[in-house]
Amino acid sequence: MAKSTPSVDALLFDVFGTVVDWRSSIIAELTEFGRARGLEADWAKFTDAWRGLYQPSMEEVRSGRRAWTILDVLHRESLDTLLAQHGFGGLGEADRVHLTQVWHRLRSWPDVVAGLTRLKTKFIIGTLSNGNVGLLTRLGKNVGLPWDVVLGAETARAYKPLPEAYRAAARLLNVEPARVMLVAAHNGDLAAAAREGLQTAFIPRPTEYGPHQKVDFKAEGDWTYVAGDFGKLADQLGCA
Amino acid sequence: MAKSTPSVDALLFDVFGTVVDWRSSIIAELTEFGRARGLEADWAKFTDAWRGLYQPSMEEVRSGRRAWTILDVLHRESLDTLLAQHGFGGLGEADRVHLTQVWHRLRSWPDVVAGLTRLKTKFIIGTLSNGNVGLLTRLGKNVGLPWDVVLGAETARAYKPLPEAYRAAARLLNVEPARVMLVAAHNGDLAAAAREGLQTAFIPRPTEYGPHQKVDFKAEGDWTYVAGDFGKLADQLGCA
Repeated sequence: MAKSTPSVDALLFDVFGTVVDWRSSIIAELTEFGRARGLEADWAKFTDAWRGLYQPSMEEVRSGRRAWTILDVLHRESLDTLLAQHGFGGLGEADRVHLTQVWHRLRSWPDVVAGLTRLKTKFIIGTLSNGNVGLLTRLGKNVGLPWDVVLGAETARAYKPLPEAYRAAARLLNVEPARVMLVAAHNGDLAAAAREGLQTAFIPRPTEYGPHQKVDFKAEGDWTYVAGDFGKLADQLGCA
Repeated sequence: MAKSTPSVDALLFDVFGTVVDWRSSIIAELTEFGRARGLEADWAKFTDAWRGLYQPSMEEVRSGRRAWTILDVLHRESLDTLLAQHGFGGLGEADRVHLTQVWHRLRSWPDVVAGLTRLKTKFIIGTLSNGNVGLLTRLGKNVGLPWDVVLGAETARAYKPLPEAYRAAARLLNVEPARVMLVAAHNGDLAAAAREGLQTAFIPRPTEYGPHQKVDFKAEGDWTYVAGDFGKLADQLGCA
């Protein structure tokens, strides 16, 4: 699958969907929270609606209509909107903070920790995520992700797929974009990275959106690598 | 030693001197390089002179006389100056890149890796260094430092001891400065951190400057913690 390319110094990973199974993690936590508080809702639908507000909220920032705002704040605003819509407007500040931070407590896909541990022996491994630094740091720590460095939208002050999000990551590592590889479960993210000269690896996560998954079942571009999971990527990249 | 203070979320570490023994590491590598190339010099003096240009080179940036410039570039310029002064102006580009990157290959003090590993079980641990992100990432990887996050002058775009260097680190972690503790072997760095509201821990490194050490043998401020090494700090902070 590998084409003739420069050797890679750093593998940077999309996080939501590629590294962590945000949907099932959040449904499980919201369901438990609702049961404990006696709040009834279709928590799967609530979770999908929360994620549904993700792109529109970032688009306000990408477009320049809104000043730079970190994802924790966008998540909180979207949560507040949904709580009001569901008649849960009476929930207090501590609960809202706790629920917003569910994005710091997501579970990883089963292959992730072992795969990253192998990849780390040969490459710098880090994030290239729209999550803010605090979110990614706490998530990595909660899950036990052995990142060498935490990069992304906040260190670039640009949300993916804006070109600066990818360029800034390579610049902060002091390498040419061609010596960085984005690993992602999303063809659109990889296409944007490839346009900036990064190498690309596609890892399918066909259950990310549960029964609503419509795209990203397979590679739709000429990516540098395509692998079934992080362990198989480590095999292809010659990691012990 | 602990005063009544808020609980801490993150321990951020000064790196050069506090985590790594830059002086003996660089003397050893330069001595070996000189022997291999037949270049004669007092490499200890060369190393001290290189470090001697560190503060003046950053001061050009701090003062605003020079646009933001990362430490790898400052190190390289200082190296070029010293090579010329020593009559080694004929050294080629590859050698200069290799020598500049000696700052990516420094050895840690003996207590560091075990101490950080314990501290990491209870706190976010990361850098708060004037090194650039690429330098700190590679140094951490070479030494096996288990950082959760890499922060410092470059993510703040301000060199310590400017206030923004400390403020930006807390902001990127989404916590109040009082919930961050700077761990450093330098009283001046701790004083600047304390002025921005960070907690402080002093770890003496009395051989950092070898026979030329003149300051920082002991705590000179009312620091939150004072400990003999990272292991003793972990003891004081109640880490298993």
